[in-house]
Amino acid sequence: MNNFIYHIPTKVYFGENQLIHLGEELSNYGKKVLLTYGGGSIKRSGLYDSIIKEIEKAGLEHFELSGIEPNPKVDSVRKGAEICKKEGIDVLLAVGGGSTIDATKWIAAAACVVHDPWDFFSKGAPVKKALPILDVLTLAATGSEMDSGGVISNPETQDKIGNGSEKLQPKVSFLDPTNTYTVSAYQTACGAADMMSHIMEVYFNMEPDLYMLDCFMEGLLKTVIKYAPAALREPDNYEARANLMWTSSWAINGFINGGKHLEWSCHPMEHELSARYDITHGLGLAILTPRWLKYCLDETTVSRYVQFGVNVFGIDSTLPDMEIAEKAIEMLSDFFFKTLGLKSTLSEVGIQSEDYPVMAKKACGGDVLRGFKPLRQKDIEKIFEMCD
Amino acid sequence: MNNFIYHIPTKVYFGENQLIHLGEELSNYGKKVLLTYGGGSIKRSGLYDSIIKEIEKAGLEHFELSGIEPNPKVDSVRKGAEICKKEGIDVLLAVGGGSTIDATKWIAAAACVVHDPWDFFSKGAPVKKALPILDVLTLAATGSEMDSGGVISNPETQDKIGNGSEKLQPKVSFLDPTNTYTVSAYQTACGAADMMSHIMEVYFNMEPDLYMLDCFMEGLLKTVIKYAPAALREPDNYEARANLMWTSSWAINGFINGGKHLEWSCHPMEHELSARYDITHGLGLAILTPRWLKYCLDETTVSRYVQFGVNVFGIDSTLPDMEIAEKAIEMLSDFFFKTLGLKSTLSEVGIQSEDYPVMAKKACGGDVLRGFKPLRQKDIEKIFEMCD
Repeated sequence: MNNFIYHIPTKVYFGENQLIHLGEELSNYGKKVLLTYGGGSIKRSGLYDSIIKEIEKAGLEHFELSGIEPNPKVDSVRKGAEICKKEGIDVLLAVGGGSTIDATKWIAAAACVVHDPWDFFSKGAPVKKALPILDVLTLAATGSEMDSGGVISNPETQDKIGNGSEKLQPKVSFLDPTNTYTVSAYQTACGAADMMSHIMEVYFNMEPDLYMLDCFMEGLLKTVIKYAPAALREPDNYEARANLMWTSSWAINGFINGGKHLEWSCHPMEHELSARYDITHGLGLAILTPRWLKYCLDETTVSRYVQFGVNVFGIDSTLPDMEIAEKAIEMLSDFFFKTLGLKSTLSEVGIQSEDYPVMAKKACGGDVLRGFKPLRQKDIEKIFEMCD
Repeated sequence: MNNFIYHIPTKVYFGENQLIHLGEELSNYGKKVLLTYGGGSIKRSGLYDSIIKEIEKAGLEHFELSGIEPNPKVDSVRKGAEICKKEGIDVLLAVGGGSTIDATKWIAAAACVVHDPWDFFSKGAPVKKALPILDVLTLAATGSEMDSGGVISNPETQDKIGNGSEKLQPKVSFLDPTNTYTVSAYQTACGAADMMSHIMEVYFNMEPDLYMLDCFMEGLLKTVIKYAPAALREPDNYEARANLMWTSSWAINGFINGGKHLEWSCHPMEHELSARYDITHGLGLAILTPRWLKYCLDETTVSRYVQFGVNVFGIDSTLPDMEIAEKAIEMLSDFFFKTLGLKSTLSEVGIQSEDYPVMAKKACGGDVLRGFKPLRQKDIEKIFEMCD
């Protein structure tokens, strides 16, 4: 078992009508607020108006950056940083899902440097300082509201790269499950797949671990399996949306890691898919994950699948290990592709097999992904082929 | 489901040899350190020397308050506050278990006021300011290392009162499981009962709750049931000590509450026992908890016992509900009194039945404990009698 540091200082207001605290929280960090958001769904839902009301009530001045796209692009970061510098912004308020929050994190860092924001990714420029970030979450998926990382895409180079710094950890996050009532069935399903992947990237790992964290991860997975279908059937089911929302934060805020060192596997592979084809991140993860699990299954790893199958899917523990493992993968596939109704192959989402080699090469950085099982270019190509 | 605020900013260094970070962390808060500890076991174990070495290496000046007792007394708080004022202490370093950390929290508050420390409890004097607190944990039990509360006893008035403030939340906690290798079997068992009680006080509650938190609580309970016996058999089992240590923090840092409003039941009852008889807190909780569960079991509450029995103890879910509930209470009793070897009755620990009425009256504040089931003086007396 490895040592670790646990530190998640983000303050979370969870529940309905917590925006009454927004003004006081923003005021702790300054007077000039940059509000960032995506395509305008927050205007249709009325959330935008509620937020502006609170900002005005607190006597704060606000500026806006709208149009932050899914798989947010470095150009949005550039635009946001320019506004911050020009207007002397004190604090950022991201309103949206992971894309908006991720972009806002890097705006917060880019506002404090003279170099181009892409240098944080391409040259490993350090984050020495960042503006404070608050957020109002509208999609349960990426966990960006409670962690210190963010993923940015650069269409020019076809790169999609994640990076982080404790300086980018949101100070305050507002998690109101009712703000996710209007999330479409498709995005709800993709969000569920995303959070399950965050958990499975850690759970499927042969490093020694803490039993208490295994139990927690199994509980989080069972929560998604129980409540994602409920949210699809009944989009305004508070209990379902609340469980999904709080699960999305805990799937990736760092608590479940418990000092494990191995790299993730499906996320780097998926980033190549969405960098090149701009598909929804959670969809790519749903397609990849069961095939990755199938590819990594052997006598050395089967014990982990057995624990997963028995504790998460309730498979009979007296069956032979390999049978439990295969049944678990099948039940996971059925959950993604039948229950959640997500597309199940790369070809269905328009990804061309001639791109597999180049995407596989980039996914492992031309070397090896040291995840659950080490994956080199050829391994990743085979996993892509299994997703055909 | 109720709204809640989640905010646990404590930074935790978990694992072996993390004390190399102690000097830098203390230095963030000042130059003059007050080291607080209990009866001297940290000198025998060598932990004291390691800490002094780090303090000196960082060029800090240190003062000491030793002799903080179990069920810490307000006099220790007075002594600590005097040293802080006289020496101009910048930061407190508690080395010990819950008693030492609890006392240190109130020293931190008392150092910043002119009134007597007991006024925080008897008169509800507010905590407007407190010195920063760091700690090195040596006992997995109370969770004081990651929460903002502390319980202080006043032998003159036979009161034992818990109170808290976010200003008392430790800034940094060092959790090294090897520091608990020398904890006796008896204290290990009492710690296990204490953390299980923290979970059950929240779990046994008829307020609407989050399924994901129920799963987590069940996982924490299973962790204690799995690893407390392992730690008794093999005191230097790292895995067991690590699981118990991290579970103790998460059992009471606030995460599992999820906005539930009801009061606790066994803790107020136990505080009367240990205020009057100075017994170990966890032992009192072990004696009370199964009887409290038995007393509260009826048709309106049985569903909660069924969930507990099936998910924590693996009882066959096809049995009749009442049978599952009774079996679960029996298995919990067996765990406390047979597996952990704790005494099972109040008479065995020397508590006189003639004191039941006065202790029962104080436990409910002369009115009613609004816990899992509302408990008035007569109810509490009956629970004490069941513990005879």
